[in-house]
Amino acid sequence: MRRSLPTLEEFVQGIRAGNRVVLGKAITLVESARPEHRALAQEVIGRLLATDARPAESLRIAVTGAPGVGKSTFIEALGMYLTGHGQRVAVLAIDPTSALSKGSILGDKTRMERLSVNEQAFIRPSPSGESLGGVARKTRETILLAEAAGYNTVIIETVGVGQSEIAAHSMTDVFLLLLLPGAGDELQGIKRGIVEMADILAVNKADGDRVKLANQARAYYLNATHLLPPRPGGWTPRVLTCSAEQGAGIEDIWKTIGEYHTQALASGFFHENRRQQAYYWLQEALQNGLQEAFFGHPDVKEKLASVEQKVLAGTLSPFAAAELVLEVFLKSRNI
Amino acid sequence: MRRSLPTLEEFVQGIRAGNRVVLGKAITLVESARPEHRALAQEVIGRLLATDARPAESLRIAVTGAPGVGKSTFIEALGMYLTGHGQRVAVLAIDPTSALSKGSILGDKTRMERLSVNEQAFIRPSPSGESLGGVARKTRETILLAEAAGYNTVIIETVGVGQSEIAAHSMTDVFLLLLLPGAGDELQGIKRGIVEMADILAVNKADGDRVKLANQARAYYLNATHLLPPRPGGWTPRVLTCSAEQGAGIEDIWKTIGEYHTQALASGFFHENRRQQAYYWLQEALQNGLQEAFFGHPDVKEKLASVEQKVLAGTLSPFAAAELVLEVFLKSRNI
Repeated sequence: MRRSLPTLEEFVQGIRAGNRVVLGKAITLVESARPEHRALAQEVIGRLLATDARPAESLRIAVTGAPGVGKSTFIEALGMYLTGHGQRVAVLAIDPTSALSKGSILGDKTRMERLSVNEQAFIRPSPSGESLGGVARKTRETILLAEAAGYNTVIIETVGVGQSEIAAHSMTDVFLLLLLPGAGDELQGIKRGIVEMADILAVNKADGDRVKLANQARAYYLNATHLLPPRPGGWTPRVLTCSAEQGAGIEDIWKTIGEYHTQALASGFFHENRRQQAYYWLQEALQNGLQEAFFGHPDVKEKLASVEQKVLAGTLSPFAAAELVLEVFLKSRNI
Repeated sequence: MRRSLPTLEEFVQGIRAGNRVVLGKAITLVESARPEHRALAQEVIGRLLATDARPAESLRIAVTGAPGVGKSTFIEALGMYLTGHGQRVAVLAIDPTSALSKGSILGDKTRMERLSVNEQAFIRPSPSGESLGGVARKTRETILLAEAAGYNTVIIETVGVGQSEIAAHSMTDVFLLLLLPGAGDELQGIKRGIVEMADILAVNKADGDRVKLANQARAYYLNATHLLPPRPGGWTPRVLTCSAEQGAGIEDIWKTIGEYHTQALASGFFHENRRQQAYYWLQEALQNGLQEAFFGHPDVKEKLASVEQKVLAGTLSPFAAAELVLEVFLKSRNI
């Protein structure tokens, strides 16, 4: 991070004005390991949310699918369509492996050549972090910053093979799963739980001689989604086909997202879901903060090291040992 | 609990002497909701583990299987066999539903008519508790008390349909799964994860015209277990048949448990596993104690209630709210 850190006021004003450089710096604060950076980031977010100049309501879309399904091409096609219709689009990612793989998704912006130079779009690679929890938290906070900067459609990309989808699901309004023509979900490497989270399924690469296979896949998933329990809010998952490369079917997908949005707003599910997500993230943040304070405390570390050996040797019960360690942490408090 | 609570010394001496009434009272302390009871229970366990009069090494056996598989009959048959061979047997249970169902397992001692009047056996129904975590913790502590009272074989019964098996697995040395003749695990309502945890599988009710079906089930599970990854400690799961009602096959199962025990001791897995379990329970106890201290703190409750509304309304970020609540908890400390 550059030395010339904006002030709190400069951050708030810059982000509200949609200044991309200031937004980028604020996200860097969110991603920083330094406590003073994180504290400033919280102040910035707090100011942006608290005042009556809050951003207009946004729509948060999770986009996932197995590697090779064409997520980047799809997101670029959808992003170009939306910016062409006057929207401002932020593309973020959750990829806990990116620290190791040096950014397997969004790391290489050239994968979204046109969108990355589009003035109405803001693309940010996955934050690196040792744990999914850390990566997810940073993305969750970045959503708030991007929205405050006026990006009213936020797309969260994940890799489609693991726990990242659950994290993305917990911070988005609609969940879109991309599929390949032909094969069922077992062959596509998609876990059943991910199929069950999807509000909209889109079979990509429905072009040329793959149209028939794409329609077969569509029929398969139509059938599969009909076997699922009813969705909260009364939505029936839709299955569509598209060719992101040729730009075909993108408008239909956006219309379907719009229908979902309208129905979710009308049923009250949209805001109820956002409230539940906020509650979930509050609980997560409390747990994480508590853990850090406890296990990072020097007296706790010392006491834990001393009781651990006795517990492992079987001469001290794990429960009595825990009492001893907790006492050290809580002793100066009148609990 | 009766007013006449034994003293710490009376508890320690009584349990060491194998006094069943004192043992029962100590377990009631473990199960009590009153902090002073729990503190005394910890002192008792601490004394029993810490001194050089520690109990001889025990063997802890988890027994599970779907409802109707004959768990009680099997445990009675195994227990009678063991007490007949000079062992002292404790039978405990993990059943988080027992508070609701008034004890679906072990609650009705008449289900083990002979074992329940056997001087060498000690049967204790599942502790009632609102959560699996609470029930599991109590059972874990009760194991230590029962062992100190000289019960060198401890059997933990679970209901076979959910998370209780993972808890039982985390506190036992060997995991025994009972099966019905005929049907595969999907038809038996047994989750695959439970089959994978089993060191020994026994097809019960292999009697009369069910012998053929029992052998079919045995063949099915032999095949299924061969497809599993190698077990820690190098053990290959065994599949046997038995008829608990007729007492057939019980001796073979005990011999197989003995072979497992011998191999686990020889490979070092037995004690390594116990160490890992103790470490796991230390972590669990730390987490639980930390949660209770935090969420039970009056200032935390008050602050949490005040920020929660703002978080749900979207005017305060979940992360900033968490900082505010954590500050209240940690403020009097120099962290």
